[in-house]
Amino acid sequence: MAEVKLHGFWYSPFTLRVVWTLNLKGIPYENIEEDRFNKSSQLLHYNPVRKNTPVLIHDEKPICESMIIVEYIDEIWPHNSLLPSHPYDKAQARFWVKYVDGMISAIEAFRHSISCEEREKAKENLWARLRVVEDQCLDDQKKFYGGDTISIVDITLGSFVKFIEVQEDIFGEKILQSERFPRLHLWFNNFKDFPVIKENTPDQEKLVAFHNLLIKKIKAIKTSS
Amino acid sequence: MAEVKLHGFWYSPFTLRVVWTLNLKGIPYENIEEDRFNKSSQLLHYNPVRKNTPVLIHDEKPICESMIIVEYIDEIWPHNSLLPSHPYDKAQARFWVKYVDGMISAIEAFRHSISCEEREKAKENLWARLRVVEDQCLDDQKKFYGGDTISIVDITLGSFVKFIEVQEDIFGEKILQSERFPRLHLWFNNFKDFPVIKENTPDQEKLVAFHNLLIKKIKAIKTSS
Repeated sequence: MAEVKLHGFWYSPFTLRVVWTLNLKGIPYENIEEDRFNKSSQLLHYNPVRKNTPVLIHDEKPICESMIIVEYIDEIWPHNSLLPSHPYDKAQARFWVKYVDGMISAIEAFRHSISCEEREKAKENLWARLRVVEDQCLDDQKKFYGGDTISIVDITLGSFVKFIEVQEDIFGEKILQSERFPRLHLWFNNFKDFPVIKENTPDQEKLVAFHNLLIKKIKAIKTSS
Repeated sequence: MAEVKLHGFWYSPFTLRVVWTLNLKGIPYENIEEDRFNKSSQLLHYNPVRKNTPVLIHDEKPICESMIIVEYIDEIWPHNSLLPSHPYDKAQARFWVKYVDGMISAIEAFRHSISCEEREKAKENLWARLRVVEDQCLDDQKKFYGGDTISIVDITLGSFVKFIEVQEDIFGEKILQSERFPRLHLWFNNFKDFPVIKENTPDQEKLVAFHNLLIKKIKAIKTSS
């Protein structure tokens, strides 16, 4: 039996964070693909509170919530550390993780917007958040958040920027324009070109096709209920 | 100059978490009371992104976000540890911190509800969250979350249960009935009777009076804008 198992959705930014982390550390694991509309009994057993993915099983014990899993992995397998060692720098990194994580409501609002007005408003909110990241989180003298290696901040931000890129293609609307966010743009190019990230990020076309179907399915369920 | 300074609101559950943590550790600090409607230039300088409290200044460097501050303090001053040492137990504690933290939207919805219907709906949401804490987080064989000593989970939960107690008095409506939530009730009695917590929790009457005025002031600002 594998020591590490991951219950997740291949197309989810939250699962992707754990996939990237495991691969950056070179940890072998068994992937268990969940069905959003028919979750496995193991998943519901392992995460009875939130009933969501990702869930990491390590030594038969479950760890839930993507960023808690990332910190757990970083503590159990400390090589290629994802968190700065100094408590102050660690607090700063955690601040940005929390800030970036807070973007999800704006991304979801954009993704599920029905009218153009709703979409426009969601985009403005998303831009405001991205502006802060552009101006205050990233440093164009550094390849990644903390320097030359990928950190917990890059993983969080990378998962959402990738998710935004998918929405851009679905709605045919650019959000992360390079002229508006040059630093973010440069940073994301560095990030997605990093070999482990590149090899472990699903294909954009496949993601767009799947998310397109997913949005339609969720809308249909909402309408019929 | 004091080594540690805290910018906060005496009546805020988020500031209270840091006040309790500093006092549980016996760390001397200078308290800087902020005015919600006229924040100090230092606060805005130290927390330009969120512009909120609490902000801890340690060795002239700012740390923001209440639970990030609590983890920072616990790492710098590791005595009377607030987090379990084993990574798995730590991940479980962080899971509950995140879960409890997510109650804020339900508490705020209750607090700012205008109609009875809104208030009733917010109460139901809050009850659902508290039910999970009652059934899955607390253990009636243990005085506190992890045993006989106060942990990061107790601090997070305690700050919000106290905040709920204040709303109960403002609206004359019981939320945390002992017959509905016997375990939570017992746990909160243990928590608020713990000497350091008791000595560092503002007086209930003062809190109720202040929050009552605060809600009115916020409503007036919303109406006039």
